[in-house]
Amino acid sequence: MTSSLADRVLAGDPRAMARAISLVEDEDPAGADLIRAIFSRTGRAYLIGVTGPPGAGKSTLVDRLISLLRAQSSQSARSHDPSAVSAGSAFPTVGVIAVDPTSPFSGGAMLGDRLRMQAHAADRGVFIRSMATRGHLGGLARATNDAVLVLDAAGLDVVIIETVGVGQDEVDIIRTADVSVVTLVPGTGDDVQALKAGIMEIADVFVINKADRDGADRLVSAVEANVALQTFQPDAWRPPVLQTVATSGTGVAELVEAIRRFRAHGQPTQAARRKARCEYRLREIMSQRFLRHLERRVLGSGELASIVDRIAARELDPYTAADDLLGRAFADSRRR
Amino acid sequence: MTSSLADRVLAGDPRAMARAISLVEDEDPAGADLIRAIFSRTGRAYLIGVTGPPGAGKSTLVDRLISLLRAQSSQSARSHDPSAVSAGSAFPTVGVIAVDPTSPFSGGAMLGDRLRMQAHAADRGVFIRSMATRGHLGGLARATNDAVLVLDAAGLDVVIIETVGVGQDEVDIIRTADVSVVTLVPGTGDDVQALKAGIMEIADVFVINKADRDGADRLVSAVEANVALQTFQPDAWRPPVLQTVATSGTGVAELVEAIRRFRAHGQPTQAARRKARCEYRLREIMSQRFLRHLERRVLGSGELASIVDRIAARELDPYTAADDLLGRAFADSRRR
Repeated sequence: MTSSLADRVLAGDPRAMARAISLVEDEDPAGADLIRAIFSRTGRAYLIGVTGPPGAGKSTLVDRLISLLRAQSSQSARSHDPSAVSAGSAFPTVGVIAVDPTSPFSGGAMLGDRLRMQAHAADRGVFIRSMATRGHLGGLARATNDAVLVLDAAGLDVVIIETVGVGQDEVDIIRTADVSVVTLVPGTGDDVQALKAGIMEIADVFVINKADRDGADRLVSAVEANVALQTFQPDAWRPPVLQTVATSGTGVAELVEAIRRFRAHGQPTQAARRKARCEYRLREIMSQRFLRHLERRVLGSGELASIVDRIAARELDPYTAADDLLGRAFADSRRR
Repeated sequence: MTSSLADRVLAGDPRAMARAISLVEDEDPAGADLIRAIFSRTGRAYLIGVTGPPGAGKSTLVDRLISLLRAQSSQSARSHDPSAVSAGSAFPTVGVIAVDPTSPFSGGAMLGDRLRMQAHAADRGVFIRSMATRGHLGGLARATNDAVLVLDAAGLDVVIIETVGVGQDEVDIIRTADVSVVTLVPGTGDDVQALKAGIMEIADVFVINKADRDGADRLVSAVEANVALQTFQPDAWRPPVLQTVATSGTGVAELVEAIRRFRAHGQPTQAARRKARCEYRLREIMSQRFLRHLERRVLGSGELASIVDRIAARELDPYTAADDLLGRAFADSRRR
């Protein structure tokens, strides 16, 4: 079953890709088996992270980016330009994983998928999928990473991860992309707040979207001043500050160009980030599996709940409880 | 050393509290020892979570909330009203942990602390501390939880956690507070985006801040419509949608009143959330300690890096690597 799903993913079957992403999202063990089966065929997609605060117009920007990448595909495919975003591929295709912590009751993620897919419905080279917030302890980050692997294995040349959040998980996801695009928006009267969004130091490219609004110049200056405060090695990449109006497409070609330049410039960076991404994923999987092992193999039924009750009653502190449980996990394995 | 620090924290010494929070933030082992020492004296503070997108005016709102809680302290202290925010305390005091993923190079968190402390400088019953994004895999969430414990143990009656982010970690922090206040702001032209911020279903109280702006009524209606879509048990709390102008203080008294009503209403909820908070913290500590154990006790020097290299080279998939490492962790403990 799973191996045939893996084969269909590797063949680029969109329904198989959707099914595979559902498996990793649901933390189905078949999802882990699938990743095992396809993993050796991953690592070829170029990963673009797009983040920024809610309301920055990221979805529209990503849609424009898709259209432009697809429109330019015939040229870059023919030129085999190593600095092309979709370098090395005959028919550049684009996948999007939109990390969308939308409320489950609003059904926004699914609706959004449908609306966005319509714009690219005629284009079989585009695959868009939203991931909603589920699970705990990095579950979303792990599922997002696995979903990217699915699209990568399916042969998509460019995978865009779009996150609406500015939390630590989102920062970790974006920071390990091959290129990180940070989107800000003027005119909310809160430019300084936007600069505080914790995403300043992870940007390879800044995009001031809705640049036709009042205050765009001020925001551009503020971001440029922030970049100028950083110290760079002589040959290091300095993040450019671009202006776009995603609704009309203005400035999006310059964004594609900036990503190309970063790709051509950033090969050593890319290798380091890919390792960081692998390490991050490995740690997450280990944490999750260890906790599952503890609950299923070491603890009796209801035992975790009673330990939690004792902590809540302040009869036991969480560090002592954790040490006890770790000690038991290892003692238990010794006994077998 | 640590025990005397614990004693000083328990005595409410602000410098000791600041030092203790630095220890838990730096993941210093002395931080864990400190939490062990003070844990039995925690669980008395009432925990208010305040979240919302960047630019929603959360800091100003929290400052107003502090002033009002402090001004009302003498009444509620005398009345011993069980629905008081600061029920059961003779001299209600307020602590704030501002989870602020500010860039380290901007120094924003520290500057913000100093500016905000000034407003309450004369008031020894107020303690404000920012936590910046550090570490990985839930490190910030764990450190935030521990910082709350420090303020709780120090005898502060109300602890406010303010998060700028809307990511999963932030949602997990806020969702387990005794009351969750979700702050939104009109007039960005992106009301629907704001509603997509993944924080709709965790709100006990909605605050539309900057309610004097155009579009406030529309945003209130949109949020109320969203609340109306949810199904509630007959006696369940229905999140009210309040309007504030934090800069002038308008509506902040109503917010305090709404929190009081929620507290009086929500005792069973509170117990369940406190257990969820304990379980969340226990799981995080266990994950972190397991990974540390693996790196220090099981793996040779540089071994993790070489496994990561093999994953990056696609010679090994992360699930197989995780299973191997878990197997070795347990086999290793058996051998000893």
